Amino acid sequence: MSAVLSTLRSTDFMAWREARQAAVEQALCDGVPSEAPAGLGDAMRYAVLDGGKRLRPLLVLATSETLGGQPLAAMRAACAVELIHAYSLVHDDMPCMDNDVLRRGKPTVHVQFGEAQALLAGDALQALAFELLVPDDGTVQPVMAARLCRLLALAAGAGGMAGGQAIDLASVGHALDQPALEAMHRQKTGALLQASVMMGAATAQVSPATEAHLAEYGACVGLAFQVVDDILDVTADSATLGKTAGKDAAADKPTFVSLMGLTSAQAYADRVLDQAHEALRCSGIARPDTLHALADWVGRRDS
Amino acid sequence: MSAVLSTLRSTDFMAWREARQAAVEQALCDGVPSEAPAGLGDAMRYAVLDGGKRLRPLLVLATSETLGGQPLAAMRAACAVELIHAYSLVHDDMPCMDNDVLRRGKPTVHVQFGEAQALLAGDALQALAFELLVPDDGTVQPVMAARLCRLLALAAGAGGMAGGQAIDLASVGHALDQPALEAMHRQKTGALLQASVMMGAATAQVSPATEAHLAEYGACVGLAFQVVDDILDVTADSATLGKTAGKDAAADKPTFVSLMGLTSAQAYADRVLDQAHEALRCSGIARPDTLHALADWVGRRDS
Repeated sequence: MSAVLSTLRSTDFMAWREARQAAVEQALCDGVPSEAPAGLGDAMRYAVLDGGKRLRPLLVLATSETLGGQPLAAMRAACAVELIHAYSLVHDDMPCMDNDVLRRGKPTVHVQFGEAQALLAGDALQALAFELLVPDDGTVQPVMAARLCRLLALAAGAGGMAGGQAIDLASVGHALDQPALEAMHRQKTGALLQASVMMGAATAQVSPATEAHLAEYGACVGLAFQVVDDILDVTADSATLGKTAGKDAAADKPTFVSLMGLTSAQAYADRVLDQAHEALRCSGIARPDTLHALADWVGRRDS
Repeated sequence: MSAVLSTLRSTDFMAWREARQAAVEQALCDGVPSEAPAGLGDAMRYAVLDGGKRLRPLLVLATSETLGGQPLAAMRAACAVELIHAYSLVHDDMPCMDNDVLRRGKPTVHVQFGEAQALLAGDALQALAFELLVPDDGTVQPVMAARLCRLLALAAGAGGMAGGQAIDLASVGHALDQPALEAMHRQKTGALLQASVMMGAATAQVSPATEAHLAEYGACVGLAFQVVDDILDVTADSATLGKTAGKDAAADKPTFVSLMGLTSAQAYADRVLDQAHEALRCSGIARPDTLHALADWVGRRDS
């Protein structure tokens, strides 16, 4: 099992990550149209380019590469899932939602372009996400394209991200217990993170058993991401985060930290990270090193 | 050519239309989840059910039936295109866009459920539209599903509906000439109406030549729809329209009526309708009666 348990050296992972981040940035730059009319393209590009950790694309690409998937399909899936994430941030930041003015260190889209344009840019980014998955250039086979669309639609919609945001809205000022908080985050952020892993898997041939272990890995990465997000909301400053820190506490939103305390939340993040690693160990995947390191990166990040 | 030129008796078309409207209503009722969390499902169903002429679904179904397409795929496409239309209305009515309070004779979604829920409901409806096109029950073959997703994504996104809305926003208070106005509407409403026809065609086997004529038919129906919409905005009252009448004039938006005058706009609608019929005549389709009658219904409607 030593090969399975080994992880990349951190410098190797960093090199992998930076190379993939740059490739995703380029693909997004190519894929998000600048020529969209009446400033819409500018707002869309502003929302997407030159920012973010690209965690979801990295999960797609790492999973696909680990399983020997189709690289062109994987890059399209990576961009599609990032566009869904980007649109959700644009809409989430709007005055009727979180009313936030800072994102990735820049004014939010509605501050920069106005609310109406932000609304439209988000809508157009969602449509573009699906468009990218069904090219007419032969780079994604129809069976794979349909499967990718299904995974993305389910993760983005009422049973996934949008539903989680509705629960989040309804939960402000209410006491949620930990199971309810986890259920909310499983939809709000977890569904898209898990879908990123499953979309990477969908670019390859994979057994149902391996797929199930990858689903567990994706769920754990999603949960770890959120627990750490809540920790950073109280421990990091706005400059480091590139968004307004301390916002959840100020909004009286339930978080893992408000529920468990800071120390327990940190210990919980570590336990969930262990579960992600365990899922990889059980998956039968020969060289899960990048996925292993990616989980660590999520669970031990400082911004 | 007499068979080609014949049209359905109006009572036959009405019976066809009412049967299909009822079938679409049922399919939407089955397809839009009531169990979505935290009131999101209620807002989605409110936005979609029990209202509207279902013009886009009728275009999908009429085209598919005329060409002998797959009925189950056609009904999914019909619902998908209606969900995109419904979400666009929800977002379009929001305070940051048109700030409208009445739609289909009911309070708009944000009036009824709040702005945040309206935003999320629209987002979730767009995701659901794509989900419907890629079922895992075998009712839509992957090649067809991928083609349907592509047509819908292109029509909904920055090069279609969302882009048209951006142009519309930017055009308030500006003098547009007729070509610019038509270009705006070709995207804002025309793209989705044309896509409805093309999605219906995509559920069948159709030659590129026939497809091109159907694209022309769809473009003409889309333009006729908009010209008549502008006419009704000044000639009908809010109760008949089920939405606020006289709004475009009040908002100083350019319309076909403000540009051409009422009489010329009516004559223009008739000419465009003739072009739609001509496209059907040239298409080589054996019995285009329903499509012919549907164009008439669009071009001669009173609400």
